[in-house]
Amino acid sequence: MSDIRFTDMDDIELLAAAVRLAQDNATRGGGPFGALIAREGEVIATGSNRVTANLDPTAHAEVTAIRAACTKLGAFSLDGYVLISSCEPCPMCLASALWARVDRIVYAADRDDAARAGFDDTAFYQLFDSPRDTWPVPVVRHAGVDGTPPFTAWLNNPDRTEY
Amino acid sequence: MSDIRFTDMDDIELLAAAVRLAQDNATRGGGPFGALIAREGEVIATGSNRVTANLDPTAHAEVTAIRAACTKLGAFSLDGYVLISSCEPCPMCLASALWARVDRIVYAADRDDAARAGFDDTAFYQLFDSPRDTWPVPVVRHAGVDGTPPFTAWLNNPDRTEY
Repeated sequence: MSDIRFTDMDDIELLAAAVRLAQDNATRGGGPFGALIAREGEVIATGSNRVTANLDPTAHAEVTAIRAACTKLGAFSLDGYVLISSCEPCPMCLASALWARVDRIVYAADRDDAARAGFDDTAFYQLFDSPRDTWPVPVVRHAGVDGTPPFTAWLNNPDRTEY
Repeated sequence: MSDIRFTDMDDIELLAAAVRLAQDNATRGGGPFGALIAREGEVIATGSNRVTANLDPTAHAEVTAIRAACTKLGAFSLDGYVLISSCEPCPMCLASALWARVDRIVYAADRDDAARAGFDDTAFYQLFDSPRDTWPVPVVRHAGVDGTPPFTAWLNNPDRTEY
């Protein structure tokens, strides 16, 4: 990391800090992505890409930052917080941020910058925009099993915690 | 879990096992979702929704199963494996599976079944299909910071591990 004080920063300072995290991580051989979670200019958690370091394909910078922020807050919602990322979130990270209920997402580089460095962000966004029967990875509903009983169990459980 | 032997199972048996995981989790107040990672009918990892239990909005059943499988294999790729899920993966889980390089995804219930139980899967898929300027959550590129230097550092690092 760096000597930046993570307080009272505006979007440009926060973004610059996220890019610096990405740069530091890339210099050490990790994926060139950094992210942070902030509220009113105060950073509560940061994340760098840890896919290869942690052997976790879901450990993108944004996911890592979201998980760290939730751990710190003791909450599964980041309502009221902003996600700042060195690069446009991929579909996984974008949906992670939606599930985390962040207020806003700001980024610097975009999916095409990532693609030029060899990453699949653009390709995966294009898959989302294409019919599934054209995908290289089959994604198939199997009619042989009824998947709805768990939802009935959920709705019937008065102790459920909604999210 | 159950007394199922996770070996030599076909898709229907695997799907039934994933639905049972979902059912068990929902009965205990967790999200009504279960998933597993298998290869040639052999299950190597399972996952249930742990969002509220672990205070982690990314801990959907599929993500949990992917992380567990990678930990077990000591790898960040699930090339050669199949993801079996009690319900259609949401955009986060679908993209997680793409990044994990699974061969195939099979599911039972779908996004609309999840929506009827109060979950945002359908809503988030619809966001992916809508222009960003119509979204309730702003997702904005900020031109004030150059986000590309980390990619240069990445490409210039001979010790990088591609993924």
